[in-house]
Amino acid sequence: MQILLARHAGFCFGVKRAVKIAEESGAKYSKVNTLGDIIHNPQVVNQLKLKGVVPVSSVSECLDNPVIIRSHGVTRDSYKELQARDIEIIDATCPFVRKAQEHVRYADKNDYQVYIYGDAEHPEVRSLCSFATNKKAVVISSAEEIINPFHKSALISQTTKDLKGFKQVTCRLVEECRELLVFNTICTATEVRQHHTVELAKTVDVMLIIGGKHSSNTRMLAKLSASYAVTHHIETAEELKREWFVQESKIGISAGASTPDDIIVEIYNKLIDWFGDLSKTDNVTDIPVH
Amino acid sequence: MQILLARHAGFCFGVKRAVKIAEESGAKYSKVNTLGDIIHNPQVVNQLKLKGVVPVSSVSECLDNPVIIRSHGVTRDSYKELQARDIEIIDATCPFVRKAQEHVRYADKNDYQVYIYGDAEHPEVRSLCSFATNKKAVVISSAEEIINPFHKSALISQTTKDLKGFKQVTCRLVEECRELLVFNTICTATEVRQHHTVELAKTVDVMLIIGGKHSSNTRMLAKLSASYAVTHHIETAEELKREWFVQESKIGISAGASTPDDIIVEIYNKLIDWFGDLSKTDNVTDIPVH
Repeated sequence: MQILLARHAGFCFGVKRAVKIAEESGAKYSKVNTLGDIIHNPQVVNQLKLKGVVPVSSVSECLDNPVIIRSHGVTRDSYKELQARDIEIIDATCPFVRKAQEHVRYADKNDYQVYIYGDAEHPEVRSLCSFATNKKAVVISSAEEIINPFHKSALISQTTKDLKGFKQVTCRLVEECRELLVFNTICTATEVRQHHTVELAKTVDVMLIIGGKHSSNTRMLAKLSASYAVTHHIETAEELKREWFVQESKIGISAGASTPDDIIVEIYNKLIDWFGDLSKTDNVTDIPVH
Repeated sequence: MQILLARHAGFCFGVKRAVKIAEESGAKYSKVNTLGDIIHNPQVVNQLKLKGVVPVSSVSECLDNPVIIRSHGVTRDSYKELQARDIEIIDATCPFVRKAQEHVRYADKNDYQVYIYGDAEHPEVRSLCSFATNKKAVVISSAEEIINPFHKSALISQTTKDLKGFKQVTCRLVEECRELLVFNTICTATEVRQHHTVELAKTVDVMLIIGGKHSSNTRMLAKLSASYAVTHHIETAEELKREWFVQESKIGISAGASTPDDIIVEIYNKLIDWFGDLSKTDNVTDIPVH
C-alpha cells in the first residue's frame, strides 16, 4: 500500500477567502445569509450554519440580514434586487471570477458575441452570462457544440474548467471567426491542480478525488483522473469502501478547490488505519498543511 | 493518363485587381513604377514591363513617375517617403491585406503585443509589421517558436498562410496569454485553394503546383500537396519533365494566387500533347476560365 497526495489539492485562494469572510461575518452579525451555498461543499456549509451563516436560495428569501455573495458570484439582477431592498452586501466573489465578469461585460459592450466555456447550470456561469446585456451569451461545454459562430466573437471560460477543452473551443472558433477575443480566465490554481492530479493518476492504481458532488472543478478532476486510473469521487471518509483496495494498491489522492484540508486528512488517516502506515512521501506527495 | 485541375487554382481577387490596375496605369501613363514586383510571378511582371510598368526595388529608385503599390502592400515608411517626394500613389494593395494592416495598427494602439503568423521576409509581412509602431511586432512561422508570450497579445496572419498552422499558433498562445485577440486574416480564397489542392493531391500520383518560386502561397500549396503525392513546383511549361510521368499517371494540377490562367492552360496542353487527351473531367476538375 502506498498513498500519494497530489500537490495543490484542496482549497483555492477564492474559496479560502470566501470561507474566511463567512466565518468573520458569522462572528460579527447574529445572522447572515449566503445566496446559495457559499462553496460547493456540504460539510463546510453545515459547519458555517452552526455559526449563523445560513444559505438561502434566492433574494426573496433574504430577510433583513446582511447577505454574503459567494465565491462563484451572483447575477447582476441579484445585485440589483439586494440594492433595491437596501440589504447589506458582503461580497465574497472570487477576485478571478470578478475579473471574468468584467471581461464578459467589456466584450459584450464592444459588440462581440460572448461565448462562455462552462457548465450552463453552474452558478458562476449563470453569473457570467448575466453580465452580457447587449447580446445573450452562449454557453458551450465542448467544441462540437459550436455551429456557425458569429464573425466577431469573444470567449471567456468558467474559472474552473480545463485548459485542454478551452483550447479546443478556441481552435474551433478561430476556424470561422474573423475576429476572436479570448480571455483565458481559467484559474491558474485550477490548471495546476488538474496537471498534478493527472500526473499522479498516471502513476497509481486507484485515485480518490475528494470534493462536493456538485463541485464542477472536482468533477473535472475525477473525469481527467479516470482516463489514467480507477477513480472514485467521494465527499467524505464515510463513503470510502475497503473493497476498492487490495493490500498492494497504490492510491492517489487529490481534492477539489472547495474541499477543506481536514476532510482530506480524515480520509488519509482512515486509509492508514486500514492498511498501516506504508505511505511513501515521494516528490509527488504533499500533505496539505493549514 | 488522367489530368485533374484543382478548383480555385490561380489568380485571386487581390492579384486580379492589382494586375488590372497595373495594365490600366500602363495604358494611361507613359511610364509607371511598381515598388517591387507587382505580384510574385516573373512572367506577368515581364509582360507588364512591355507595357511601361517597371518594378523598382525602393522609393529612392523612383523618378517622378506614378508608383503602384503592389498587392502585398508596402511599409508605412514607404508611403511616407512617396508622399514626402510628392510622387503620385496608385494603391493596388489587396483589400484583405489592407484590412490586416488595420488590425495590426488597432491591436498595437490598444497595447497588445502583436504576433504575425507569416514569413518574416515576405513583403506583406514586412508591410504588416510596419503598422505596429508602439511595440515591435513579432513574426512567427510556427507554434514552436513561441516562448513566454506576452499576457496581452494579438495574432494576425499573413493572408496567404495555412489555417492549420494558424490554429496551432492560436492554441499555443492561448495556453499562456490571459488576453488574446485573434484576427483570422487568412484569405478565404487561400483557404479554399489549399483545401481543394489537398483533396486533389490525395487522389493522384503526381501533383504539379504552378506559380512563382518566390510566391509564399504557392510554396505552401506545394508543401501541403507533398504530404499526399509526388509534387513538382514549377513556374512555366518549360520546366515540365516528361520523365516525371508514365503513361498511366494520374496528374493533379493546382496553382498559386499569382499564377495567370494562360500559364496553367499552357502546361495542361503540353501534357495533352505528350500523353494524348485522356483527361477526365470529374467533379474536381475545373478548367480555369477568364
